[in-house]
Amino acid sequence: MTDTRHILTLNAGSSSLKVSLWHLGETPDHLEELAHGQIENLGSAPHFVLKGPGGAVLTEHRWAAGDPDGPGDHKGALDLILTWKREHVGDLDIAAIGHRVVHGGPELDRPIVLDDTTLGRLDRLVPLAPLHQPHNLRGVHAARAAFPDALQVACFDTAFHRGHPWVNDTYALPAEYYNEGVRRYGFHGLSYEYVAGALGRTAPDVLAGRVVVAHLGNGASLCAMQGGRSIECTLGFTALDGLAMGTRCGQLDPGVVLWLMDEKGMDTKAVSDLLYKQSGLKGLSGLSHDMRTLEAAGTREAAGAVAYFEARVRREIGALAATLGGLDGLVFAGGIGENASGLRARICGGLGFLGVTLDPARNIAGADAGRISADGAGVAVHVIETNEEAMIAAHTRALMA
Amino acid sequence: MTDTRHILTLNAGSSSLKVSLWHLGETPDHLEELAHGQIENLGSAPHFVLKGPGGAVLTEHRWAAGDPDGPGDHKGALDLILTWKREHVGDLDIAAIGHRVVHGGPELDRPIVLDDTTLGRLDRLVPLAPLHQPHNLRGVHAARAAFPDALQVACFDTAFHRGHPWVNDTYALPAEYYNEGVRRYGFHGLSYEYVAGALGRTAPDVLAGRVVVAHLGNGASLCAMQGGRSIECTLGFTALDGLAMGTRCGQLDPGVVLWLMDEKGMDTKAVSDLLYKQSGLKGLSGLSHDMRTLEAAGTREAAGAVAYFEARVRREIGALAATLGGLDGLVFAGGIGENASGLRARICGGLGFLGVTLDPARNIAGADAGRISADGAGVAVHVIETNEEAMIAAHTRALMA
Repeated sequence: MTDTRHILTLNAGSSSLKVSLWHLGETPDHLEELAHGQIENLGSAPHFVLKGPGGAVLTEHRWAAGDPDGPGDHKGALDLILTWKREHVGDLDIAAIGHRVVHGGPELDRPIVLDDTTLGRLDRLVPLAPLHQPHNLRGVHAARAAFPDALQVACFDTAFHRGHPWVNDTYALPAEYYNEGVRRYGFHGLSYEYVAGALGRTAPDVLAGRVVVAHLGNGASLCAMQGGRSIECTLGFTALDGLAMGTRCGQLDPGVVLWLMDEKGMDTKAVSDLLYKQSGLKGLSGLSHDMRTLEAAGTREAAGAVAYFEARVRREIGALAATLGGLDGLVFAGGIGENASGLRARICGGLGFLGVTLDPARNIAGADAGRISADGAGVAVHVIETNEEAMIAAHTRALMA
Repeated sequence: MTDTRHILTLNAGSSSLKVSLWHLGETPDHLEELAHGQIENLGSAPHFVLKGPGGAVLTEHRWAAGDPDGPGDHKGALDLILTWKREHVGDLDIAAIGHRVVHGGPELDRPIVLDDTTLGRLDRLVPLAPLHQPHNLRGVHAARAAFPDALQVACFDTAFHRGHPWVNDTYALPAEYYNEGVRRYGFHGLSYEYVAGALGRTAPDVLAGRVVVAHLGNGASLCAMQGGRSIECTLGFTALDGLAMGTRCGQLDPGVVLWLMDEKGMDTKAVSDLLYKQSGLKGLSGLSHDMRTLEAAGTREAAGAVAYFEARVRREIGALAATLGGLDGLVFAGGIGENASGLRARICGGLGFLGVTLDPARNIAGADAGRISADGAGVAVHVIETNEEAMIAAHTRALMA
């Protein structure tokens, strides 16, 4: 008998809601994607697009800024998706909803079923991710109101990193701060977990070794994996650390924060706005947070921002190779990692000393080629299209009865 | 005719004054050391020791805390040294005094002669190093009062790093901050410059290549050199960044600073005290900032602090190797780097993938062996006794008529 149940995944950002819809297949490890998409620019000029599994656009709509008919918040965005569902795929049985939640704190190393108790626990983690966790939880509350009978599951961006050895989990602060939760949590865990699974299917020998995965998108980080398990991540306590990102600073001397406050008179809100929203590629280029825009711009500042990004990625790949004691595999994923073949070539061009040599034609083919390193190179370099939504759906399926 | 002139070097820390005395030799590049030493614990229980060039103690004195006869500040410390000089070596001609000054700002890439104009320039750099620069300048003022006719020279800990490529000199902040002086200055430059000179004398082929120097003392950092020139340093805007140190945190997510202020209600003074004085080895171990104490302690926390220190050094050596595009040489210097052979072995044990292999007997011999890597190893590993005072004296000599 065919299972009639469906899974909805929700990934609520500060001004966006990503969504995907899955039909439960014949066996517990099979899920059929029906649609995926997102509503962006909530609060300004919303843009709603939904695509089929092959990428064909199912529906798309844009609203002018301030249009009262547009979705104003996460609840409005969810209503929009549910209206589309009712009109186009009918009265589906949504048995479970899987949510991406940024922070699972020090203990949660796997997804959990959400109820009043566990939601309270996640509320208490808001101080650890004040800019992200509240949006995620707003998505959960909207979904509980809309589907009171569905199983609600939280999948954490930190969970995949919870097995880090202590030296990669602590800062050199007095132990009381570690005990209070000041740790190198690491993020992008759902992406890394998906990539590990995909690499294990195509190159299990590589996954069994020492691998660095570069998740390079508007948010960017690197993960060091040993035998498929994360042992270090360049993102730490917050989403600010490690690599420079679209608008975030990445690695920064803590003395800079003290200087900004003591010498420039900024308060923590102003510093936070600067480091999260005005820095990174956007701050360096003075132009855009978008790598495609910068690569096309042709200005000295834009080229500088791109060169900075590449230098920091290269530097941190070297650092994680040292943590791993050497390198067997390197994987590029994320919007930039999957698409920017020139950037991949420039990053890898400086890593010959680790055994990295690309095959130029395969590198241009990217994810279609899968492995893009030259035959016989010491390090297997892959491009993998990451899919956080698929990971959330799989985790949610696993927690269904 | 023998030159009767002498050079005094002064290195004023927050609660210490290091000193050395040199006789100008027959040729401009020859200096004969007469004595070196320091007064520590100024303001608490001062300890004065002065040694001859071979290490024999010339004089030593300790005062109880609060003893009014002890030196109370940098001026008192200088008076003490001058009294010793008058009584033991007579009325020497001190023709020049060389000062270590932490911060030379964005422009100064070499030592300068101090006068009212240049001193004003260094005063304006105090906001960049509020915990160190004022002490250095106090030493200068005390020396000018005592020797109004001597040439006063400032040697900067930042100068050796001023040729860094822009990607290693900036943070990913809007360009206005770089222009205002928020840069990765790097420190320990006098030590790195001395080490580069010493390595160039014993192994010029190594210095000509890609070298990482590990200056590991109570302060600790790494420097990447290409052809003997610094291209990156793990210390950045302040003395807080990079490696964990005796009492300083090293690399820290800037979000931790924001959390300490927003969630723990700390102000910048309290955060600064925590990050500069209560963190690092001392904070992690809850016991001591001193590596020798920790190696002997046998507690889990002490062992953890040492393991953390090693892991971060190893990680950052990998990072700088990536910046250099590979590694030809690795040099250990500084109190820990020169003496802790077990720590050197554990750090290098994880760097085989870079071509690092130690010769165990040579490693135990340390600086006496010079090169401690195994014959035929891909990376030449050296131990070099650094000597900032000799570097200051040489720079000062070069600026004398």
